[in-house]
Amino acid sequence: MSVTAAKGFTAAGIAAGIKENGNPDLALVVNTGPRRAAAGVFTSNRVKAAPVLWSEQALKGGQVSAVVLNSGGANACTGPKGFQDTHATAEKVAEVLGRGPIEIAVCSTGLIGVLLPMDKLLPGIETAAGQLSEHGGEKAAIAIKTTDTVHKTSVVTWGSPRTESGGGWTVGGMAKGAGMLAPGLATMLVVLTTDADLDDATLDKALRAATRVTFDRVDSDGCMSTNDTVLLLSSGASGVTPAYEEFAEAVRQVCDDLGQQLIRDAEGASKDIKIEVINAATEDDAVEVGRTIARNNLLKCAVHGEDPNWGRVLSAIGTTKAAFEPDRLNVAINGVWVCKNGGVGEDREKVDMRYREVHIVADLAAGSETATIWTNDLTADYVHENSAYSS
Amino acid sequence: MSVTAAKGFTAAGIAAGIKENGNPDLALVVNTGPRRAAAGVFTSNRVKAAPVLWSEQALKGGQVSAVVLNSGGANACTGPKGFQDTHATAEKVAEVLGRGPIEIAVCSTGLIGVLLPMDKLLPGIETAAGQLSEHGGEKAAIAIKTTDTVHKTSVVTWGSPRTESGGGWTVGGMAKGAGMLAPGLATMLVVLTTDADLDDATLDKALRAATRVTFDRVDSDGCMSTNDTVLLLSSGASGVTPAYEEFAEAVRQVCDDLGQQLIRDAEGASKDIKIEVINAATEDDAVEVGRTIARNNLLKCAVHGEDPNWGRVLSAIGTTKAAFEPDRLNVAINGVWVCKNGGVGEDREKVDMRYREVHIVADLAAGSETATIWTNDLTADYVHENSAYSS
Repeated sequence: MSVTAAKGFTAAGIAAGIKENGNPDLALVVNTGPRRAAAGVFTSNRVKAAPVLWSEQALKGGQVSAVVLNSGGANACTGPKGFQDTHATAEKVAEVLGRGPIEIAVCSTGLIGVLLPMDKLLPGIETAAGQLSEHGGEKAAIAIKTTDTVHKTSVVTWGSPRTESGGGWTVGGMAKGAGMLAPGLATMLVVLTTDADLDDATLDKALRAATRVTFDRVDSDGCMSTNDTVLLLSSGASGVTPAYEEFAEAVRQVCDDLGQQLIRDAEGASKDIKIEVINAATEDDAVEVGRTIARNNLLKCAVHGEDPNWGRVLSAIGTTKAAFEPDRLNVAINGVWVCKNGGVGEDREKVDMRYREVHIVADLAAGSETATIWTNDLTADYVHENSAYSS
Repeated sequence: MSVTAAKGFTAAGIAAGIKENGNPDLALVVNTGPRRAAAGVFTSNRVKAAPVLWSEQALKGGQVSAVVLNSGGANACTGPKGFQDTHATAEKVAEVLGRGPIEIAVCSTGLIGVLLPMDKLLPGIETAAGQLSEHGGEKAAIAIKTTDTVHKTSVVTWGSPRTESGGGWTVGGMAKGAGMLAPGLATMLVVLTTDADLDDATLDKALRAATRVTFDRVDSDGCMSTNDTVLLLSSGASGVTPAYEEFAEAVRQVCDDLGQQLIRDAEGASKDIKIEVINAATEDDAVEVGRTIARNNLLKCAVHGEDPNWGRVLSAIGTTKAAFEPDRLNVAINGVWVCKNGGVGEDREKVDMRYREVHIVADLAAGSETATIWTNDLTADYVHENSAYSS
């Protein structure tokens, strides 16, 4: 289903030969209208890949006709030639589809610092255009994988099913990302589509509200990518203009689902760690503490070893600027309050960490705000995968 | 030589039974005068171990007669009982040496959240006091090891050797630390001694100047400890009051040497990475960029795999607030400028990464300030060591 679950979209995914191993590496998502409204959120990394620089410009008009995505190369840190390549890619898609190039968003993912093989990418666009289909969402999701072990898609249909007369609207999407996952955003490419009939300002508002509490709170390895892009396109093909709150909730659900899928497929991970910070003075405090815990390599190793080492949680909290008193901190791991009032709490032997999901609650005892951050453990497999990635 | 290289100090190191494996775990360093001036720098972690809270108070008087250090338990996050134990430890040392307890500094290292076995520690202090010797520095350095594979000591003698009549003065020291190494400070216990005749204000100034550019720029794994302590004690026994600049330089050299020894012994590391940030607009910018690169797990994995993956350096730089233009950044790895003007530079195949030391230069092209940060690679051994530490 993926990006073609909503009416008014076609997609394709093919192997253009960008990846040397012959796997699918080129996806095309086309908005067939009637509306072509769009919004986007991009990496906050100041070193931005050429396709990010291009797509940021494209989104300024609030209209996107199509998104072309390639895996097998990030086209980041590739200088003026890299930007020319992105431009040529957009031009080619525009030509094939009969649209204006500035309405074409471009996304790339893969190794930084390598130029794309344009002799393969440009013919690939023609091939992909020839395979566009209302059932192509799955293939598109597969074509954007890098180290992902599975492709990620999600669909929420609101109200009555789209097949019923006069019924409902849909938000669907696809995502890739398995490493370099960090807030603002996780390293990811995400394309969301909807047939709800909404303008670009509404899409933008709903998308930013959703990413702030979903993708921005996924922090697998603390590393921020040069290529992160999340796009939301509306075809308006359902003819329905939903209430903002309902639409925003649907977008949040799809983003949350895709974010969870990213964490579950993170490189080398054996545990998914839910860090819930409670009783913070402010939401910002809660997020800062959650992220700091999520990035503590020693704790991530301890979780990998199924060791409820709460001292590493406290030492991480202690490095933040959040409001708290050290002797009022409480920490629970999988439901056992192993740290109470900054000291030894319940018997750590009671903590059962055999399962993949680990739930850490950090109680700051300083207010009533809450935030949840998701991360993974640190494993030898993560090291192996990332020490051999480009060689 | 270690802490007893300078005249006016005795030391001892014994196995008191704090560690279950029977290894040495208790050290005592005593200033025999005539002067007892001292300065200290402590962890900036807001969750501070009981001995840190105690020693911060002790140092306020500017006088330290003795330092007692134990491995085998950090006495951190141990509540009021933990603080009582530290107090009792200082009282015992004071009693045995015939000094005031507020002149006794206490340092502990080991697992967080566990009370110390006082029934072993207190008798151990009597045993250690009975073995105090002008040649005890080496044994003291051995007794403070936790996961350290080697003990770390360093000595600088300024001017003519101390054995010559009327000659010179000495700064000596010992350090422990092999994990949880991060700025402000690295997880470490360090005791420096000198026979130079200086007051506590001068010691404090020289110590802070030295740690700022040495221990504070060692960042093995981004994790900050609850127990970091660096102490500098002066006996004045040389009778020489050196020029401040010469003394400060000697302290810096000893700190630099000990910092290097910490990095070379970091848990599981196979590479020592020197990150030199040049042409920064400010020194703060240079330090921020250096630390951010040092904490990038993906880059640390790449270095482990001997992969000159400069894209990960750029993506790390891009997350900082330092002044730079992405298309003016240059990166050299082991002398090869693999990234020029934010894009592909010299052939990455030219980079030889077979040796333990890896030298990364990040040129921000934004000014003339410089800073060097040391870190390690991220290895499967680090994961193994830290996933099994407390279990």
